[in-house]
Amino acid sequence: MENPKKLRIALDVMGGDFAPEREIAGARKALMDSKGEIELFLIGNEKVIRRTLSSQKGESSQFQIVHAPQVVTMEDVPTAAIKNKRDSSLAIGMRLHSEGKVDAFVSAGNTGAVLSASTLILGRIKGISRPTIGTFIPAEHGPCLLLDAGANVDSRAQHLYEFALMGSIYYKIIKKKENPTVALLNVGEEKTKGTEEIQQAYKLLFESNLNFIGNVEGGDILKAKADVVVCDGFVGNIVLKFGESVPKFLKYRLRKFSKKGLMQKLAVAISLWPLKKSLSDFDPNEEGGVPVLGVNGVVIVGHGSSTPKGIKNMIMRAVEMARSKINEQIELALVK
Amino acid sequence: MENPKKLRIALDVMGGDFAPEREIAGARKALMDSKGEIELFLIGNEKVIRRTLSSQKGESSQFQIVHAPQVVTMEDVPTAAIKNKRDSSLAIGMRLHSEGKVDAFVSAGNTGAVLSASTLILGRIKGISRPTIGTFIPAEHGPCLLLDAGANVDSRAQHLYEFALMGSIYYKIIKKKENPTVALLNVGEEKTKGTEEIQQAYKLLFESNLNFIGNVEGGDILKAKADVVVCDGFVGNIVLKFGESVPKFLKYRLRKFSKKGLMQKLAVAISLWPLKKSLSDFDPNEEGGVPVLGVNGVVIVGHGSSTPKGIKNMIMRAVEMARSKINEQIELALVK
Repeated sequence: MENPKKLRIALDVMGGDFAPEREIAGARKALMDSKGEIELFLIGNEKVIRRTLSSQKGESSQFQIVHAPQVVTMEDVPTAAIKNKRDSSLAIGMRLHSEGKVDAFVSAGNTGAVLSASTLILGRIKGISRPTIGTFIPAEHGPCLLLDAGANVDSRAQHLYEFALMGSIYYKIIKKKENPTVALLNVGEEKTKGTEEIQQAYKLLFESNLNFIGNVEGGDILKAKADVVVCDGFVGNIVLKFGESVPKFLKYRLRKFSKKGLMQKLAVAISLWPLKKSLSDFDPNEEGGVPVLGVNGVVIVGHGSSTPKGIKNMIMRAVEMARSKINEQIELALVK
Repeated sequence: MENPKKLRIALDVMGGDFAPEREIAGARKALMDSKGEIELFLIGNEKVIRRTLSSQKGESSQFQIVHAPQVVTMEDVPTAAIKNKRDSSLAIGMRLHSEGKVDAFVSAGNTGAVLSASTLILGRIKGISRPTIGTFIPAEHGPCLLLDAGANVDSRAQHLYEFALMGSIYYKIIKKKENPTVALLNVGEEKTKGTEEIQQAYKLLFESNLNFIGNVEGGDILKAKADVVVCDGFVGNIVLKFGESVPKFLKYRLRKFSKKGLMQKLAVAISLWPLKKSLSDFDPNEEGGVPVLGVNGVVIVGHGSSTPKGIKNMIMRAVEMARSKINEQIELALVK
């Protein structure tokens, strides 16, 4: 008989830019690390999965394989993809989750499509008007959770409040910190700053049970002035992508400087070690992926270019979320 | 007789965090660098100005001193400050400009108050609905002009189009590049991305005479995908401040790494040289200040913490703008 406590995770092996090789390699890593605590369902083209499994080293009989003939690509328009590709690995995996046959769903595919499928197939948590995605941004003293990170480009005050509530619970679970601080991203510290929606959100947050510390500015994110920083998905997406581009920009500038002479070349070569070590948490594979918060299920979505390590970390993050019963905690907080 | 071509610049010497020492030291530098091409009006408390002039080295008879008994502080609410402090250095300097007695006004004071005073005292250029401020952000191949950088937290499509038009002309004048590329900051490249206002702005920009290259994402700013990047002032302010916080964050992380051992300490010490050189343009004093575009005059506003070099660069930027007759160029572009 199977261990009844074994968590069942569905992995969309067709989603990423290097699918299914990296997905399957990541699945093997997760299985090794989790020491029999999880059961992995690989969702995708069965032939391709079997071929990839046999081409890679390691045992392959421990996986459950679920055939899905279609693939949602990065070019697909999210809502159309869900409607027209009902036999995609994304739709089939998400349906398995909605039917209770798995405890979480993980994908490195089209983020918009994963979001749409989560909302349409799993449905929203009662009391949540807009599901959200949140990302950890490296900061001085531990990471800062920024949300919404791009799911909702036009967020109202009530949505911002809900993001804060869900982000606060997610932060508590993942970073093991009770009552994390929450701030509103704004153009100044005073409560009269920002658009009308932002001012209204300030009021909602101020009156809530959250550990709200007020507004923070763009320069406060990397300073980790707050654990959870809430913003509109438009702003969040732009800040996030700007932040992700910093290490590459730095590299570009250093390369340019190193061309000025031998001393310069030497100094840059030496500086790569401390820089790489100091900025390692800018690599999205470290966190693995971002959660879709506010839907009736556990969904993790990651970068299309996720490495096997990134895929493994996504799976482990899904396990952690499923174990914590995060959605019950969200529901409880909503009625408080 | 005076050189009739001498440009007259009014400097608010009471505005900055280290006023009036840095302002007056910067004014001296500007006078030296400009070789008799400019006449400088120091606006502020006459006694304080004379005392500071005599306490610093150098000739002090070349300045025009205009007494202003009041000071607008960083804590003042912009609109109230303009109304209640009619004898502040800010209001008096701006009125001098509006009366045609000086050709430009420069301040390192309260940005919001400078913006309000510019709009109220100088008035808007005909055809411009919202004056804007634009900032150069360091990028891979030369800087990128980001605007609006915080003047308008709630910008409509028409405003975004006007920012693009003014930014394009400013970029051409300052960076000596004909027909600079213009892009709209968005959450994706497709024209269907973003809020309704953003999609409408895309349309206006696409149909305009500007060198519009489409949408860019947050990660494209440092890559310098476009010369001029247009966005809402809320987004612009947050991206700008986030960007400004990067060097400090880097320093923090490197310091932390250097504490791990002797080798680490050594490597970090060496890396400071290439890093400082590679990121020198992150220092706002290099550009000096940002222009208030769209008002009937030439106004430069800078960081409160501007160094004398920063103040000098603000003055030189004002000279450059006044010489180029930027506002005539904007008016011309508007009727095209």
